[in-house]
Amino acid sequence: MSVIRNILNSRSSKGGNFFNVLTQILGFRPKNISHYKRAFTHRSLNKKDADGNAINFERLEFLGDAMLSAVVASHLFKAVPGGNEGYLTKMRSKVVSRKHLNELGKDLRLIDHIETNIPKEQFGVNVHGNLFEALVGAIYLDKGYKYCKRFIYERVIDPYVDIEQLEGKVISYKSLLIEWCQKEKKEFDYEVYEDTGRDELKHFGVKLRINDRVVAKARATSKKKAEEKASKRAYYALQNKME
Amino acid sequence: MSVIRNILNSRSSKGGNFFNVLTQILGFRPKNISHYKRAFTHRSLNKKDADGNAINFERLEFLGDAMLSAVVASHLFKAVPGGNEGYLTKMRSKVVSRKHLNELGKDLRLIDHIETNIPKEQFGVNVHGNLFEALVGAIYLDKGYKYCKRFIYERVIDPYVDIEQLEGKVISYKSLLIEWCQKEKKEFDYEVYEDTGRDELKHFGVKLRINDRVVAKARATSKKKAEEKASKRAYYALQNKME
Repeated sequence: MSVIRNILNSRSSKGGNFFNVLTQILGFRPKNISHYKRAFTHRSLNKKDADGNAINFERLEFLGDAMLSAVVASHLFKAVPGGNEGYLTKMRSKVVSRKHLNELGKDLRLIDHIETNIPKEQFGVNVHGNLFEALVGAIYLDKGYKYCKRFIYERVIDPYVDIEQLEGKVISYKSLLIEWCQKEKKEFDYEVYEDTGRDELKHFGVKLRINDRVVAKARATSKKKAEEKASKRAYYALQNKME
Repeated sequence: MSVIRNILNSRSSKGGNFFNVLTQILGFRPKNISHYKRAFTHRSLNKKDADGNAINFERLEFLGDAMLSAVVASHLFKAVPGGNEGYLTKMRSKVVSRKHLNELGKDLRLIDHIETNIPKEQFGVNVHGNLFEALVGAIYLDKGYKYCKRFIYERVIDPYVDIEQLEGKVISYKSLLIEWCQKEKKEFDYEVYEDTGRDELKHFGVKLRINDRVVAKARATSKKKAEEKASKRAYYALQNKME
């Protein structure tokens, strides 16, 4: 009896935990959790449905990839009215590159939630991007295009898609800012602190001071990203002065 | 004065005509017609907006292609639960192949509405598919993903996406049906008639009779397609008998 209760408890707590983690990652409450469970199920578990179809995240990668391509295409179309077809295609492939998707999946620590029969250490680096794509596919199935788009804007486009940077015109906003401070003989300081708050994911906060005045703040999943984000904000705030 | 009135009349009648044709092609009333105007504007007109950005349908092709890929991906994902990533990718590339898109654009007679400075005869065959993609892009901008999906279902998936046929298992439902009739010693007859109704586009109707009984009817933009559609319907209706 107590064994059964233990199993039930551990199951429900695990289920509850997954729901909370998911809500954190997604930024909204999932409706049908089974899609997300599939998005974290590796083929090594050999799961099958009643009809004998494999249950794992590989098919969801296909769906997620298609949604990412569509949402990023529509963003670039609107953001760069002067870009022709070739330009838009090139820019999109940068945004949804394997490397970038792997970074996104890693940032969200998706691998922490994978269900697998082989040790996590044996996965190659692409598992992060694959899980990210699968998650996007699951969102589409659960909540449709609108939420899918919202998630991609929040997790991909808003934080990381910078046209100038994609075009290679700006390598790093931090270096731009430092250069400007040195030229203008201003003192600058990046104050970095851990700011995880109630998040499941580790976050870093940054306060950027110029001549002891806070000119920008930012928060991201790595120190480097938080600094870059704050620098970019400061850059746009100070742009008139800097040019 | 009368000249001005004539110009106004001819303009408004042309605009009105385009609106009606569009409504016919789209299956719904467009909201912002400027997106569709762009979808039919060829680069040879050299149109530019106030900021100097080119106005023609080429960028819309990029957007429409992305939406087609996404909608067809989600359809195949659901329609073939046993298909793995590789299978889904292959099937999608068949559905959105250049050849198929050209057929779709041709069926809708999109080229009739193109605005161009070079003679239509000089366009290659791909212009039909390009116009079709651009139209899908315009729908996305005008009415969002939902209408885009609806249009793609009505114009691409429902009439032409047949998994068995895509897999090459069934080459033609008409030949399947004729074979069965010959084996079972039944008489068959395809009665084809023009059935354009109030449509802007030419349509054909087919009544398929077996032993003088109408077993299926269909309507499509070519005789061959209408016959195939009727055969498929009859095939599924008679399937138990035929196996």
